[in-house]
Amino acid sequence: MRSKALIEQALESAVTTSEAQGCPPRLAAAVRHAVFPGGARIRPQLCMAVSMACGNDDPRLTMAAAAAIELLHCASLVHDDLPCFDNAATRRGQPSVQAAYGERLAVLAGDALIVMAFQQFATSGAQHCERVAPVLGTVVQGVGMPTGIVAGQAWECEPRVSLAEYQRAKTGALFTAATRAGALAAGARAEPWAYLGDWLGEAYQVADDIRDVIADPKMLGKPIGQDATHGRPSAAAELGLGGAVEHFDRLVAQAIASIPPCAGAPQLRQLVQMESERLVPLSMTTTAGVVRRPVVLA
Amino acid sequence: MRSKALIEQALESAVTTSEAQGCPPRLAAAVRHAVFPGGARIRPQLCMAVSMACGNDDPRLTMAAAAAIELLHCASLVHDDLPCFDNAATRRGQPSVQAAYGERLAVLAGDALIVMAFQQFATSGAQHCERVAPVLGTVVQGVGMPTGIVAGQAWECEPRVSLAEYQRAKTGALFTAATRAGALAAGARAEPWAYLGDWLGEAYQVADDIRDVIADPKMLGKPIGQDATHGRPSAAAELGLGGAVEHFDRLVAQAIASIPPCAGAPQLRQLVQMESERLVPLSMTTTAGVVRRPVVLA
Repeated sequence: MRSKALIEQALESAVTTSEAQGCPPRLAAAVRHAVFPGGARIRPQLCMAVSMACGNDDPRLTMAAAAAIELLHCASLVHDDLPCFDNAATRRGQPSVQAAYGERLAVLAGDALIVMAFQQFATSGAQHCERVAPVLGTVVQGVGMPTGIVAGQAWECEPRVSLAEYQRAKTGALFTAATRAGALAAGARAEPWAYLGDWLGEAYQVADDIRDVIADPKMLGKPIGQDATHGRPSAAAELGLGGAVEHFDRLVAQAIASIPPCAGAPQLRQLVQMESERLVPLSMTTTAGVVRRPVVLA
Repeated sequence: MRSKALIEQALESAVTTSEAQGCPPRLAAAVRHAVFPGGARIRPQLCMAVSMACGNDDPRLTMAAAAAIELLHCASLVHDDLPCFDNAATRRGQPSVQAAYGERLAVLAGDALIVMAFQQFATSGAQHCERVAPVLGTVVQGVGMPTGIVAGQAWECEPRVSLAEYQRAKTGALFTAATRAGALAAGARAEPWAYLGDWLGEAYQVADDIRDVIADPKMLGKPIGQDATHGRPSAAAELGLGGAVEHFDRLVAQAIASIPPCAGAPQLRQLVQMESERLVPLSMTTTAGVVRRPVVLA
């Protein structure tokens, strides 16, 4: 079964379990709304792809990590859209959870999703139980303090913020967790795979900044112009649109170059190329008048 | 070292780890504020006491579970005090996190604490790694959907609610998780210990209802009259004050009676008695004109 289908199955299973007898119905609906139909599922796909490249000898543990990472991502989107943060009415082309269910259920749905994420490690049926703690720890690093996505969001509440730290925590951290967890779940060392996550995470943040300026909001599924509206730092503002696109292309090239030698390297390179085209399509930048040249790394 | 001191040490260690290099300072402060000085730490004490009664042969795993449960409890208090819920200005005798740090940091602090709780299982150094998944699963049940404390809070957002389900989820679930996790961490079966958690959890909820009516807000550390203010169900409203106190005493007796035969039973009974006197002191009920008689279970 293809990765995306396996991920959807795991997420469906997690959400269905949570809706069991006795669950408050509106909370169940809000949580389901937060997880489906879903976006590109790039983080769990990355996790699984790295695991495959490393031999994938404990597919249940890999699946648990992948599902956990996606659930944590969904949780962060729900809280990001709260009135006290972005106050966004739409997300992924539909009403945001807070718009559809209200603020209280949005807070609780986000909480429930964080818990559901870690529940994956309780029910995974992993074969290598000695790997569970390190994999869980890697996922925790990507979301918790001091430098995970919750910390990233918290930089928006600080008077002084380092742009690099903010972006690395807010976006990059979960990508790095995805690649490291994929390696660890398959019994491989995490460090060689961290760079792929780091570079891709940075590329994703730059892509987000670019799309916030030139994407079609209907295609994007959420409003544009958010960075300017909320006075947020942006690579497009810092480097200009052309500079930001060039920066993005360079980051993708670095990500691909960082893939350790392994049997699954070609498939991983292909996944990264496809994702990069999806994030910042050639058609979109051409329409915006940007010329893109192939990147040659030194 | 006494249990409470060990718990404080574990919590201090968890919070200090989170404040490491790179953490947004205000988030770190908000999280510390949410955990310290702390309340009675009854849930982790219960977890440890049950583990001791079962032989406590993996003290690091027990400590991880106990700390996780307390961190999850702290997280729930932070979110409960949010403007969209109780909008409480004080908690445990000091400003609530949302009053001191604002709504956004309160949302994020709660999220960070949930993550920190599960992080305990990544860093525990448990000897019996095959126990980690079941213990983690039990803790998850106490906080997540369908019937944990997040679900309990979500019942307040439903048009129709069963009082018993609401209270069992909102308060009881984490007590049940504490006793079950304590047993599982020590390699014992969870089910015989579930009743202690169930009965104590129910007693705690009734005590909360009683104290909301007759406690001194300064001693309580939070405002009273909250149940009436928020139109919440209350044992004191349902049964009258005297009836609620009698109900509380009966629940405590049932909790004590449910303790399985074991070497540590006397210490556990003592802990429960002491906690029950702390929760609903004889002096408080006497001052309120309530007569209390010893409970004789059929």
